Amino acid sequence: MHGTAAGPGIPEIKAYLNGVDTPNMYGATTLIVKIFGSIGAVSAGLDLGKEGPLVHIGSCIASLLGQGGTDNYKIKWRWLRYFNNDRDRRDLITCGASSGVCAAFRSPVGGVLFALEEVATWWRSALLWRTFFCTAVVVVVLRAFIEICNSGKCGLFGAGGLIMFDVSNVTVSYNVMDILPVAAIGIIGGLLGSLYNHLLHKVLRLYNLINQKGKIHKLLLSLAVVLFTSVCQYGLPYLAKCTPCDSSLADAESVCPSNGRSGNFKQFNCPPGHYNDLATLLLTTNDDAVRNIFSTNTPYEYQPSSLIIFFALYCILGLVTFGIAVPTGLFLPIILMGSAYGRLLGMLMGPHTKIDQGLFAVLGAASLMAGSMRMTVSLCVIFLELTSNLLLLPITMIVLLIAKTVGDCFNPSIYEIILHLKGLPFMDANPESWMRNLTVGELVDVKPAVISLQGVEKVSKIVDVLKNTTHNGFPVMDDGIVPPVGQANGATELHGLILRAHLIQALKKKFFLKERRRTEEWEVREKFTWVELAEREGNIEEVAITREEMEMFVDLHPLTNTTPFTVLESISVAKAMILFRQVGLRHLLVVPKYQASGVCPVIGILTRQDLLAHNILTVFPHLAKSKSRQKRN
Amino acid sequence: MHGTAAGPGIPEIKAYLNGVDTPNMYGATTLIVKIFGSIGAVSAGLDLGKEGPLVHIGSCIASLLGQGGTDNYKIKWRWLRYFNNDRDRRDLITCGASSGVCAAFRSPVGGVLFALEEVATWWRSALLWRTFFCTAVVVVVLRAFIEICNSGKCGLFGAGGLIMFDVSNVTVSYNVMDILPVAAIGIIGGLLGSLYNHLLHKVLRLYNLINQKGKIHKLLLSLAVVLFTSVCQYGLPYLAKCTPCDSSLADAESVCPSNGRSGNFKQFNCPPGHYNDLATLLLTTNDDAVRNIFSTNTPYEYQPSSLIIFFALYCILGLVTFGIAVPTGLFLPIILMGSAYGRLLGMLMGPHTKIDQGLFAVLGAASLMAGSMRMTVSLCVIFLELTSNLLLLPITMIVLLIAKTVGDCFNPSIYEIILHLKGLPFMDANPESWMRNLTVGELVDVKPAVISLQGVEKVSKIVDVLKNTTHNGFPVMDDGIVPPVGQANGATELHGLILRAHLIQALKKKFFLKERRRTEEWEVREKFTWVELAEREGNIEEVAITREEMEMFVDLHPLTNTTPFTVLESISVAKAMILFRQVGLRHLLVVPKYQASGVCPVIGILTRQDLLAHNILTVFPHLAKSKSRQKRN
Repeated sequence: MHGTAAGPGIPEIKAYLNGVDTPNMYGATTLIVKIFGSIGAVSAGLDLGKEGPLVHIGSCIASLLGQGGTDNYKIKWRWLRYFNNDRDRRDLITCGASSGVCAAFRSPVGGVLFALEEVATWWRSALLWRTFFCTAVVVVVLRAFIEICNSGKCGLFGAGGLIMFDVSNVTVSYNVMDILPVAAIGIIGGLLGSLYNHLLHKVLRLYNLINQKGKIHKLLLSLAVVLFTSVCQYGLPYLAKCTPCDSSLADAESVCPSNGRSGNFKQFNCPPGHYNDLATLLLTTNDDAVRNIFSTNTPYEYQPSSLIIFFALYCILGLVTFGIAVPTGLFLPIILMGSAYGRLLGMLMGPHTKIDQGLFAVLGAASLMAGSMRMTVSLCVIFLELTSNLLLLPITMIVLLIAKTVGDCFNPSIYEIILHLKGLPFMDANPESWMRNLTVGELVDVKPAVISLQGVEKVSKIVDVLKNTTHNGFPVMDDGIVPPVGQANGATELHGLILRAHLIQALKKKFFLKERRRTEEWEVREKFTWVELAEREGNIEEVAITREEMEMFVDLHPLTNTTPFTVLESISVAKAMILFRQVGLRHLLVVPKYQASGVCPVIGILTRQDLLAHNILTVFPHLAKSKSRQKRN
Repeated sequence: MHGTAAGPGIPEIKAYLNGVDTPNMYGATTLIVKIFGSIGAVSAGLDLGKEGPLVHIGSCIASLLGQGGTDNYKIKWRWLRYFNNDRDRRDLITCGASSGVCAAFRSPVGGVLFALEEVATWWRSALLWRTFFCTAVVVVVLRAFIEICNSGKCGLFGAGGLIMFDVSNVTVSYNVMDILPVAAIGIIGGLLGSLYNHLLHKVLRLYNLINQKGKIHKLLLSLAVVLFTSVCQYGLPYLAKCTPCDSSLADAESVCPSNGRSGNFKQFNCPPGHYNDLATLLLTTNDDAVRNIFSTNTPYEYQPSSLIIFFALYCILGLVTFGIAVPTGLFLPIILMGSAYGRLLGMLMGPHTKIDQGLFAVLGAASLMAGSMRMTVSLCVIFLELTSNLLLLPITMIVLLIAKTVGDCFNPSIYEIILHLKGLPFMDANPESWMRNLTVGELVDVKPAVISLQGVEKVSKIVDVLKNTTHNGFPVMDDGIVPPVGQANGATELHGLILRAHLIQALKKKFFLKERRRTEEWEVREKFTWVELAEREGNIEEVAITREEMEMFVDLHPLTNTTPFTVLESISVAKAMILFRQVGLRHLLVVPKYQASGVCPVIGILTRQDLLAHNILTVFPHLAKSKSRQKRN
């Protein structure tokens, strides 16, 4: 199976929007695998959600539209290539991600906020209303299809209308004493969430070892999980006792017991007039399971034993299912786990509180989400849009904040753990405090010396440099220039930064000169189209250059980015990192603080890899000590 | 009246969070004036809202807490000075602003999003959950007071519960054809909104002229507006005909006609069993007026003529009230205007649509808000939290997007207009396109030459520079340094940037040396505390220096910021502006791209004022031409 098509996709998208190059993540193949894989996985009844895959699918579609189509399948619209620059591509993928969440939870505002809070690194006001526009379109299309499918001809599509897990039919009344169970839910959610993160990390590392052994191991692992899930879901309900239907329910006869695909109070193996409460939760789709466990005004529906079995099963499934080689989402498994313990707590508190058990289940789900994912605003809005109970909002907010705070005491969020596990060079928002004590000058001193090119450079030198280094950018300088001010004795001018891809383009296109001279603008325009210059691929090994050509020259001036961002060598790594991240750079030139003849105008180039805390600490281990000392104090 | 205490305050807060220094905006005096002014203005029945003042009040409290108290009234907690740096102060004020919106509309998530979308310039993930925490606290406190005041002993406080304008009692059903009225509302909202912005701009300019004439003119203007409002609100209802109560209403006898302070169907001058629909809208608080015009399932409550009179009156009031010297908010006047034309349109469309007239009023209000303020996500959530009707959300989203798009065709948002009118140097998110064609080198060339100081400088030179310039930052250099690499013949080292405030501190503290030498660290620590160095005030005229002292020296090295941000002279103004805004700078050093002896290491300093489009265009008028040419094309 395709590497990036398995797993949730959200951490990779987060890394991409942070500026990490994750190749082949948004191809047409990934898209197709993801769509069919997700349909298969969800309909197999596995304990996984569709929101992760939908986010990835949305991003893939956005990326393909942005590139004007796919290279593999020869479908390209040239006019769509308008978006072919880094920023627009990132914006499109952000829109795609928010549309995915919106489609998964029918939650337009929640989708926008999820993209803002969790996924995106850079955020602009224009991006806000653009993602808003995307989710508005998604919700209108959804609404239209739900209208069309009202007759029931589309299977489960649109079940529940625009509000998936409606709990608006209970009046929320609470008083001062209810602060205790609410705080308890938050604290337990935070503890369980961080425990879940910890265990999932262990399981994923184990799975990585298994999956690396080959495709057959991957397949066997997945099959084992599927088999375990099916056996438990079908077998465990036999453990539950049958419960007689509660005749006090409104239209009790029509709802209890039920035999259909969806519906509360499943009959299963029970005599007429009785239902099996564990079957109600297990023998149904995940969406319906949530709906049933959120059901309000039914305080006596579930026995504690059934809920405990359900909770234990979904804890195990939630840990073992996520890492298998199918497209998975994390939201739904966590909601299922959380709702079970929330409802259990509600039962425990039953005599002392006026809050409905269904609402306890909602709060439990919210707390576990916050405890594991550490989001606040977006979860709050997603739960509001899922349940449509505005009066529950203040309590939800408190639960989310408590759970996030408790969780943050133990470990980072689940997405950060996965990012780290995948080794993606994600750049955090805040520099570490020890970064303030290291200057970029010290950092570039321990790197190999920077390799710079002349403004008009010999072909052989360029080929040499490209073959012997893996750098993606090279400073371009002109020696012996007469500067407009100052002494005239041969200044060095920093012309800018040239990208590896552009050097390869120049070689491929044979942009060669017989003599050392500057080119005219028309010569450049004749040789290169802007589409070619936007290409980022190319390999020096593929370029054939004759012996005569090796002695010729290339004028690099027109291909050079003359406006690179620079920092003084005396600046701290922390400040350089803020600049790097805020402006969204790939290369940062370090210039000397001395001004004199013979001083090289560039003393180093910093890239994302150079500024990652982990990489700096391997070179400066004493900083790690000061870091741990700080922590101990 | 205090200058910053009048008006809405939101544009000033927006400018402050953008990095503009707006003195005396968050003092204790402003806070007190704002609280009592707002109470007076709202209870006088003027056509203004309390959200603007509440946002300002929230920010004032945040700022005072951040400073540990106020200087004027001798109340200071020193431990609170922990927050006394630019970033924490900005974060606190953002939290204060979101709490204000939350308190005004009982809309916690809307408050967070308002701060995010409209007020804040820099945004971090940590700030998101901090504002969320603040609004959670606000809503819990609100909820507790509403509970306590349930008995009605607190007057109008808490009327309507947590959901101010509840319209959740209607089922929202619509079909494809309803797209037409919805689009119409959006388009009309955009047109009216931009027209409102245009007219308000004219009115505010006129008011500025009047207010400048003196306090008596200010007072007379306010009195005239108050008088006009009162006369209209009491007099106009006599124009409306009495309507018999509709007996088909549920509990018709208890609700119609009503005589109390609040309530729908006011009797006013009508015989028993009849009500005056215009009095229902005018003779009540603004909140109740909105509640009455949003009232659902009452399609025959209002006559078109009454709504037209109401709309016309509030258009006039909305224009003339805003500029008077009292604390005003813009939200409520716009909601009142918008709801009137929305409901009118609903009446017009009545036979062709299934959407309730109350919902039309809600949509009208939303569209006019978006047409004037150009927000999307935050308005959407605020309206959701005001009305608690989740099924209306897709329509609201479409209306908001259409209105914003239409409005953007004509003029900027109302807050930007006010910012511009006040002459605040607000830095926009996106550089103008012509800024890409101008380098910072060209920009500093037209400025006066940069004045730099030596690392150990003579006192007389410092006094001279401080007296004869108004610059806030000076580069510090050392000549004749032997650099670690390169030729040894006298390099110049750029040591950093020193602030005017620190130079004045050094003079005040007599940090003088008899000979030209560098100081030791302990000498500095003995002289200055970090609180003194955090002070930003000080005037050179207040510093007395003797003739002998003039000949002495100051070692500027320890007081210099050695890690200033720099750009190459060849970089474009657009890129410099992105750096300036994203990293949140006050000074940006321009360094030469040439490296040679005798070249000055700093060729200029850019400040916020230098990078404002308006100021650049006055120096480079030909760019303005290219700008207008672009627009025409």
